[in-house]
Amino acid sequence: MSSDLEESSWLPSDWSAAEIRVRYAETDQMGVVYYSNYLVWFEVGRTEFCRRQGLPYKNFEEDFESYLAVAEAHCRYLKPVRYDDVLIVRTRIDTFRRRTVGFQYEIINKASGILVANGRTLHVLVDGNGRPKSFPESFSNILKRSARL
Amino acid sequence: MSSDLEESSWLPSDWSAAEIRVRYAETDQMGVVYYSNYLVWFEVGRTEFCRRQGLPYKNFEEDFESYLAVAEAHCRYLKPVRYDDVLIVRTRIDTFRRRTVGFQYEIINKASGILVANGRTLHVLVDGNGRPKSFPESFSNILKRSARL
Amino acid sequence: MSSDLEESSWLPSDWSAAEIRVRYAETDQMGVVYYSNYLVWFEVGRTEFCRRQGLPYKNFEEDFESYLAVAEAHCRYLKPVRYDDVLIVRTRIDTFRRRTVGFQYEIINKASGILVANGRTLHVLVDGNGRPKSFPESFSNILKRSARL
Amino acid sequence: MSSDLEESSWLPSDWSAAEIRVRYAETDQMGVVYYSNYLVWFEVGRTEFCRRQGLPYKNFEEDFESYLAVAEAHCRYLKPVRYDDVLIVRTRIDTFRRRTVGFQYEIINKASGILVANGRTLHVLVDGNGRPKSFPESFSNILKRSARL
Repeated sequence: MSSDLEESSWLPSDWSAAEIRVRYAETDQMGVVYYSNYLVWFEVGRTEFCRRQGLPYKNFEEDFESYLAVAEAHCRYLKPVRYDDVLIVRTRIDTFRRRTVGFQYEIINKASGILVANGRTLHVLVDGNGRPKSFPESFSNILKRSARL
Repeated sequence: MSSDLEESSWLPSDWSAAEIRVRYAETDQMGVVYYSNYLVWFEVGRTEFCRRQGLPYKNFEEDFESYLAVAEAHCRYLKPVRYDDVLIVRTRIDTFRRRTVGFQYEIINKASGILVANGRTLHVLVDGNGRPKSFPESFSNILKRSARL
Repeated sequence: MSSDLEESSWLPSDWSAAEIRVRYAETDQMGVVYYSNYLVWFEVGRTEFCRRQGLPYKNFEEDFESYLAVAEAHCRYLKPVRYDDVLIVRTRIDTFRRRTVGFQYEIINKASGILVANGRTLHVLVDGNGRPKSFPESFSNILKRSARL
Repeated sequence: MSSDLEESSWLPSDWSAAEIRVRYAETDQMGVVYYSNYLVWFEVGRTEFCRRQGLPYKNFEEDFESYLAVAEAHCRYLKPVRYDDVLIVRTRIDTFRRRTVGFQYEIINKASGILVANGRTLHVLVDGNGRPKSFPESFSNILKRSARL
């Protein structure tokens, strides 16, 4: 019950920003970036988001034996992205429940300011054996602090 | 109008199947496959689907200067997948319009028969300069032949 | 001493063969395969080599907590390789010492029979903490059986 | 003849430096970075090197229809590299001939200052059809300026 209330009072967190320069390895023979690489950039965005919250994902795994397993990923490709382009990956948490967390992403071409892609990923917190677990309260508090209230 | 009718009479095509063995390169430190690789497997599924229709995607680009640019991708991760697992990527077309085509995917663990992931991608047909174009009639006919009627 | 003799009597093993179809993801904007992917194919070759010896690398890690850490890799790119090409990765062991093993590779275009790349990798056997260890005798015996004597 | 003299008077260029943060995607189930990714980092080093010389590789391809095809790659893996490590990729030209150029790399863990890998790549200048060509004089002059004399 209180958990439901918590959820309903949850607001999306602020955005964090990570900068990326497109690698030649990320292009394909169409002359633009191959589509799976955007999911890698989303991960770079998540990593930066967690660091900004004072919760580096590295420690997350090492100190708490907790892993954010991906349950779902979605990406919309709006404009082509090319080798050597500089991109900004904006990331925020848009849903937060007892055992799941959802991230939202916007990828912007730094030079033009144009939104080139956006997307979402949904994650389940699991232990070292892949079993779902609840977020420790210390995490929840940090994540809640990052919410825009 | 006739185009709309065409769309409404469209039925999903039959499934094609491609076999994949998970590479060590595709795992991450969580001990399972990193999530962006499923989109690469979807592409392997599409390639095999087109070949089965007598329309190898390679020729598609070379002979017609047509490219299937990705507009959207979605994946649901249902069960972990590990190094050396053998997977079946089932692929079919589920939507087909004048300038866009949608593929649907199911990834199955060959040994257990369990569905480990599914997803969809949406593509826009573009020319060599990235401008949207209509599918040539020869393509449409082949794709329609593959529909389950 | 006996170890040195063992080494000096070692002969390269027979070649195993793995088949690969080039993925779109593996190309870059030059229209050919990006150079780091050959190292992934070498790994596919190693995996197949070990399986053929009755020693799947998967079990290697799981049953013996032994890992083949890469110490060195070398690749010569002889002919361009393109999307949808079918390749044969030939793999054999060319050096075998107490704690290290060297693999040799040849990548052949299946349609033309032409050698498109070759290379070598050198590996150190390590335990779960990354510390070098000696090959168990059971491994050595299997690997020696595979030698061309 | 004069070309030979040029070669003999060639000295390695100065090092350029590019910073990289290790991505989760780059790790494998051994808990360290998968070995092919170092070649991608070498490419990031080359891109940065060319930019520092006032010769962005992007323009190289676009303005001159010239491509640096990889002929050979070699990497020595000295220390394990982990997720979220910050690395410095040092790059310089160590050989320069009429149609080929060799790059040398050192990868250093920024926090510890320890050399974690080094390597070399050799490239052939080719035109849009993959045929070897000579470096335009304007390039040669820029590259020579970067040499440590």
